[in-house]
This record gives sequence, C-alpha cells and structure tokens, in this order.
Amino acid sequence: MRLVRRVKEMQSISRRLHEEKKRVGFVPTMGSLHDGHLSLIRLARKMCDTLVVSVFVNPTQFSPSEDFTRYPRDIERDKKLCESEGTDILFAPETDDMYPEDFSTYVVEERLSLPLCGRSRPTHFRGVTTVVTKLFNIIRPTFAVFGQKDAQQAFVIERMVRDLNFDIEIVVAPIVREKDGLAMSSRNRYLSPKEREEATAIFRSLSGVKQMVRKGERKTSPLIKLIRDEIARTETGRLDYAEIVDTRTLSPVEVIEDDVLVAVAAQFGRARLIDNIIIKKDEL
Amino acid sequence: MRLVRRVKEMQSISRRLHEEKKRVGFVPTMGSLHDGHLSLIRLARKMCDTLVVSVFVNPTQFSPSEDFTRYPRDIERDKKLCESEGTDILFAPETDDMYPEDFSTYVVEERLSLPLCGRSRPTHFRGVTTVVTKLFNIIRPTFAVFGQKDAQQAFVIERMVRDLNFDIEIVVAPIVREKDGLAMSSRNRYLSPKEREEATAIFRSLSGVKQMVRKGERKTSPLIKLIRDEIARTETGRLDYAEIVDTRTLSPVEVIEDDVLVAVAAQFGRARLIDNIIIKKDEL
Repeated sequence: MRLVRRVKEMQSISRRLHEEKKRVGFVPTMGSLHDGHLSLIRLARKMCDTLVVSVFVNPTQFSPSEDFTRYPRDIERDKKLCESEGTDILFAPETDDMYPEDFSTYVVEERLSLPLCGRSRPTHFRGVTTVVTKLFNIIRPTFAVFGQKDAQQAFVIERMVRDLNFDIEIVVAPIVREKDGLAMSSRNRYLSPKEREEATAIFRSLSGVKQMVRKGERKTSPLIKLIRDEIARTETGRLDYAEIVDTRTLSPVEVIEDDVLVAVAAQFGRARLIDNIIIKKDEL
Repeated sequence: MRLVRRVKEMQSISRRLHEEKKRVGFVPTMGSLHDGHLSLIRLARKMCDTLVVSVFVNPTQFSPSEDFTRYPRDIERDKKLCESEGTDILFAPETDDMYPEDFSTYVVEERLSLPLCGRSRPTHFRGVTTVVTKLFNIIRPTFAVFGQKDAQQAFVIERMVRDLNFDIEIVVAPIVREKDGLAMSSRNRYLSPKEREEATAIFRSLSGVKQMVRKGERKTSPLIKLIRDEIARTETGRLDYAEIVDTRTLSPVEVIEDDVLVAVAAQFGRARLIDNIIIKKDEL
C-alpha cells in the first residue's frame, strides 16, 4: 500500500491510472475507521482494479461549534486497517494543501441539503459537496462508495454527481450495526457507558416503525410519535429530528405511498448520532 | 466535424478520447461567434489533437432582467465557422439536458466574483462557474481557452480550477479588437451606429490610462478620472464601473506597484460592454 500525502502526487498517480485504463474504486473517509468503513472498503475492493481510500477530517463540513478539533484521529491504526483490507493507495492530505489560505470556491446543493441534518447543520453539506468534488477531481475514480448511514449525504452526492455531470458511479453500501443495533459511527466513542446503552433507543425506534408499517400503518404521524416516545424514554438522549420523507425530494410525507426514508438524529451526551431506514414501495 | 447535441453522447466520446490519450483542447462559447472567438479556436487548434468547441447560451449566468432570451443565436453560422477553423467536435446541448427541472447544485466562487462585474451582476459568476464545471466534467479537456476580454471571468475560473483541483490547464488568450479599438463582443450587434461610434470611448480611455502610466503616473485616482471623463463625454454611454485592481485579489489599489487590471464596464444603449488592460509590474 502506498501512502500519499500531497495533492499533486495523488493527481499524477491518478493520471497514470487513467492511462493504464484501471478501474479505480474510491472510499472517502474522515478516518477513525470502524467496521462500517471496512464494509465499504471490502465492497469497493471487489469491484475495482485499484482501490483508493482517503482519510481527511474535512474542516469545511464542521461548524465552529462542532467537534472538528476533537474529532478522533489515528492515522497509524487507519493505515494498518486499510492495508489489511487490500487498499492500494491511502490518500491522507494535509489541510493546508487541500485548503490554501485564500481558498474561495464551494459546491452547494440547494434543495436536498436543506431539510433533516441541513436544518441543524446549515453549512455541513456545502463542506461535504466541496470536499467530495475536490477528491473526485484529484482521484478521478470510476466509482465511489458512500455509506447508507449518512443517507442524506448519499442523496446529496448523487444529486451533485448528476447536476455537475461527474462521470463517476455512486455506490451506496448498507449500514453496519453493533450487535444491539446501534449504527457504527466514529462518534460512538464519545458515549459514556450509560449513553452507549441508551443510544440503542434510536435503532429500536426505527425497528418499531418498520413493524408498524408491516402491520399496515401508512400514516406517518403515529410512526414519528413512536420514535419521539422511544427517545424521550431515555435519560441521556435528546431528539434532534425524526422525519419520514420522500426519497426523491426529502420532503416530509403524511401518508406512505412510495419509497420513504425514515431518518433520526439525536444527541446522546457529546455525540450527535444519526440513523435511518428506507421503506420501499414494494414492501408496503 | 461532428455536431453533438446530447450530454451523454459527449461524455461517451470524452471517455474514448481519454482512452486514446488524446490531448483535448476546449473552447467554451455562447455562440454568435466573432473574430474574438475564432482567435481562441485557432490558438486551441494549434495546441491539441482533438478540438472541442461548445455553443451554449447558459441561462444561469443571466439575471431575470438581462438579455438571455434576446441574446443572439445562430447555430448554422457558428457550425460553419467552427468547421472552417478545424473544430473536431461542436458540442451544442439543449438547455433541459444541461439543467433538468430539479437541478439544484451550483459552484460558487466567493471572493474574486464579488467586485467589478460581480457587483452589478450578483449571480452571473455563479452561473459561469457552474456551467464551466459541468462542461469540464462532460468534456474533460487537457486545457481550456478563455478570452482576456472577460478578465474577471478568467481570474474566477483559474481560482476555481485551483480550489476544486481540476486537472485542466487554463489558457487566457488576448483581446481581439475592431480596427477602431472596440473589443469584439457578441453584444456589439445591439449597438446603433451612433452608439457603435461612441463606444470606442472605452478603449480610448484605457489607452489614455496606459499612456499616463508610461509617463510616470502611479496614483490610480487621476487614471480613473480619465476613464470617467472619456465616457462622460459621450451622449449615449453610461459608466457602470472603472476600477484599477490588484490582479491577485481584484481589490482596488491606490498606487500602482504591482500587476494591475484596469477594468471598465459601460452601458451603450441596450449593450453592456466591458473591456480591460493589464499593466504589468515590469512595464512600470
């Protein structure tokens, strides 16, 4: 595995891979790799000739009040994990190489970025679309893998790829969960034992929604109430949002008639956790 | 010459050109080609294996009050001109193929876009950076040629290319002028004979600035006064701005000590005309 630290170096490697007609798979991450990331890396590994993983804690997707400086970083561990999963190139650029002092160009998605996490994190997706555009241009992959855990991010990236005509396939990989159902996240390590235990309420509430829909419930208000009640029963959790939205527009629906995303965000101690399920029309 | 109308078709051609390791030159235009455009096309022709010219009147760079609908269009004439200059591919997409109904992603440059034309046309450069990003992703050229006439546009595009890590070289080609000095522009055809005659005041004022600097003037206020006075002497012209700015930041300077852009925009009848000169440090 080759560790690449400089943007220019990565770009000249990308140019060569292109000339050699390699099928390049790409998994962008902020490091602190867990089994969720590894599942994306394994999926990409099977689909490509050359596998590039990036580790970059992207400052532009954090607001000043968020956890950018204390976001967990462990490049040595990430390196070992990437290597053991058959990564060919680990791209881990420095912040000032990615964002020179007079950096002034951003990519903004202005519809799907607004609801859900966009409401509590108004500059977050602009940071994501900007850094992903940069990484796409630096690495020029054939395809890139994103996690379903960040469902809204995946929708926003897919929209961006369509709108800006990136010739890159977006692959969305399923959520990987702990045994008790908690979605894997680098932020889970912020949780105290008590919070960790109570955080299972999130997935429990989503499973409850799924069951109610299976039993025939189509109205979303009782489903959302179920989520609210489940989080409210915890001592340490505070709901940010629970919404059921159309998967094409991310607008709330009152009655489920088509594919919907059931999305939850909740704060447990220092950790803002998100999770979701998709309910397909053909499951109704 | 091949005329390509669909984005998908152009993308599959670009993919093939890449595989064949062609050096692809690209000249984006809004059509209505004049000798200014042809000089860009000739320059590009000399530098590449495959020459792509695009003709697309881009709606997102016009404000609702501007001349999008009456902007001159003549694809048959443009086709002949491109063909005669040795263009390999003329890419002329339809608006709804470039901008689907739920289009929602934009590229914004937030510093160099603000002064000069950005002040009178606040959404203009966002339209330019968005469409150029799309065209870059669709065509994936080795280099692209822009005209010095749109000096601020060239600076904004260069900044965007650096910030978003496009692996594309930007070539800026000199302004082509009519015999009496008026910079060539598709909008010159809006001018009445009287306005056409008086519009020469723009270049005359820029030449006057150059002479004063040659004679030793370094303070910008008398230079700007010269431009204002020259335009004020016309009956049909109305100055939008006359500014002398640093070429790196596009911020106004009071005393010329480094490379500066002397930029003018003025309305003559229905036509908003722009022109500029660059004064290099080594000419001082």
